[in-house]
Amino acid sequence: MAKILIVYSSSTGNVKKMAFFIEAGVKDEGLDVEVKDIRETTIEDLLEADGIIVGSSTYYGAMTASVKEFFDKSVAIHGKLNGKVGAAFSSSANIGGGNETTITNILNVLLVHGMIIQGDHSGGHYGVVSIGAPDSRVEKECKRLGIRIAKLVKKLHF
Amino acid sequence: MAKILIVYSSSTGNVKKMAFFIEAGVKDEGLDVEVKDIRETTIEDLLEADGIIVGSSTYYGAMTASVKEFFDKSVAIHGKLNGKVGAAFSSSANIGGGNETTITNILNVLLVHGMIIQGDHSGGHYGVVSIGAPDSRVEKECKRLGIRIAKLVKKLHF
Amino acid sequence: MAKILIVYSSSTGNVKKMAFFIEAGVKDEGLDVEVKDIRETTIEDLLEADGIIVGSSTYYGAMTASVKEFFDKSVAIHGKLNGKVGAAFSSSANIGGGNETTITNILNVLLVHGMIIQGDHSGGHYGVVSIGAPDSRVEKECKRLGIRIAKLVKKLHF
Amino acid sequence: MAKILIVYSSSTGNVKKMAFFIEAGVKDEGLDVEVKDIRETTIEDLLEADGIIVGSSTYYGAMTASVKEFFDKSVAIHGKLNGKVGAAFSSSANIGGGNETTITNILNVLLVHGMIIQGDHSGGHYGVVSIGAPDSRVEKECKRLGIRIAKLVKKLHF
Repeated sequence: MAKILIVYSSSTGNVKKMAFFIEAGVKDEGLDVEVKDIRETTIEDLLEADGIIVGSSTYYGAMTASVKEFFDKSVAIHGKLNGKVGAAFSSSANIGGGNETTITNILNVLLVHGMIIQGDHSGGHYGVVSIGAPDSRVEKECKRLGIRIAKLVKKLHF
Repeated sequence: MAKILIVYSSSTGNVKKMAFFIEAGVKDEGLDVEVKDIRETTIEDLLEADGIIVGSSTYYGAMTASVKEFFDKSVAIHGKLNGKVGAAFSSSANIGGGNETTITNILNVLLVHGMIIQGDHSGGHYGVVSIGAPDSRVEKECKRLGIRIAKLVKKLHF
Repeated sequence: MAKILIVYSSSTGNVKKMAFFIEAGVKDEGLDVEVKDIRETTIEDLLEADGIIVGSSTYYGAMTASVKEFFDKSVAIHGKLNGKVGAAFSSSANIGGGNETTITNILNVLLVHGMIIQGDHSGGHYGVVSIGAPDSRVEKECKRLGIRIAKLVKKLHF
Repeated sequence: MAKILIVYSSSTGNVKKMAFFIEAGVKDEGLDVEVKDIRETTIEDLLEADGIIVGSSTYYGAMTASVKEFFDKSVAIHGKLNGKVGAAFSSSANIGGGNETTITNILNVLLVHGMIIQGDHSGGHYGVVSIGAPDSRVEKECKRLGIRIAKLVKKLHF
């Protein structure tokens, strides 16, 4: 059975909430899913997942140092994530506050690993963005992201 | 007297409104300022300005083709905008809808011209973002952008 | 049978050469493939393809206005490219001359269309970059890109 | 007297070499300049500098975690770097290997701090890129960057 890993770094709890909204979408598609704080995540966890969805607070227009540190270490398995599915989400204090650049910063890491990503023709095109605490729009977009990523993983792995 | 050119491409009128809010900020600083639709703007206008502020609707996460066409033509004066001040703003339908990537897309053009840009430690960090029609936050941020750019032009040119 | 469209805008011929190197890779995988100048490409061509690979000269750190104009028009079929595979490539005059930002500019368009892209853990991570005329490295990377995209299309469509 | 801080994170020594080439350019302009490894740099050092030039190895298309960690901590002085001059440079293993996205990743941090950056109409437009060990082109571009940044600092601070 295919498995999705949702890994997050959340300073205020907003990104963590988004992670669980995404989890609900993945579950709707019947896939195995795990939500983990980046501090409890291992490189081995990346290897075991078919899809990896990464969330980070927006810090200076980019993922937090803790997320980057984790992925810098993932160089130890460089090449082994090739062909896995990835996605990203973020929360920032303000509109225009660096949320899209944070998401593309994460997506770039996934692309350098040879991973597969998908945009969305509606809502947050590169990944879900919350401004402050997630509202009903964010909840809906997160669930939609979980469903879309799960569908893509199923298409690729079965 | 230093002069600021605000040039925009607006499909729904939102970006045009933002342009005039920015103009108000520039005027507060006592600089000469002109607001122009990109279709009425010439390469000569770029040469005459000390600061160039560019606004575009968000189309597929980037500036509109009409803005890009104008700047592709500006290759005729490549090198002559070196040291001028630039800035960018955009409006998009949705949060996460490609507005920051539109702004960085414009800023990249300005940097390739050797221009000088400044971020903002509050509000829209790379430039002002409106979601749909500009509200009071956007009006305030636009005015602030106009003031900051005018101050920077004054510092550099006097 | 799945079909790949390679569409390019080439001012000096370098990007066109890259397009045909990519075509060779796709053919190795046994897929139907067509190489077209953007000026001869229609929105209908996008609908008929399962994979769309877009190449552009680097102009001011972004795709050329002609490529952007084509994709701005593609709003007429917005939503219908969802789930198709995409990729990008570019040529620029200099290292650090805006080639990666051109590729990510194109990839953003594809993501806003809901398309699926894949990075590469070796070589040009986001897409193939040539500095001036394509050399043997570029030829090799282009062929590799064609093979990888063809494999991904096959995985998704069969 | 105005002061430039050049701070770097170098895993192979290439970025460190670039830092000293940039230093030579700054010295030509007669400004005070200090080159520091990021591990020996303090937030206080940022406050004392009029211009801050940041170099990082390219790791997964972005600055290294150590550079990001340093700037995440700089939130303690958020707002106080407003109006200072910044610039970025990077080295990566391959053309298309994430070097431009590393530079824009750093520039985004500087913009979020309200800092002022300048592109270059020739060479590496967003900042200097080396592919592997710096060659004579890189040395020349680094020196040029140092000169340009020093000139900009002088224009703004005197």
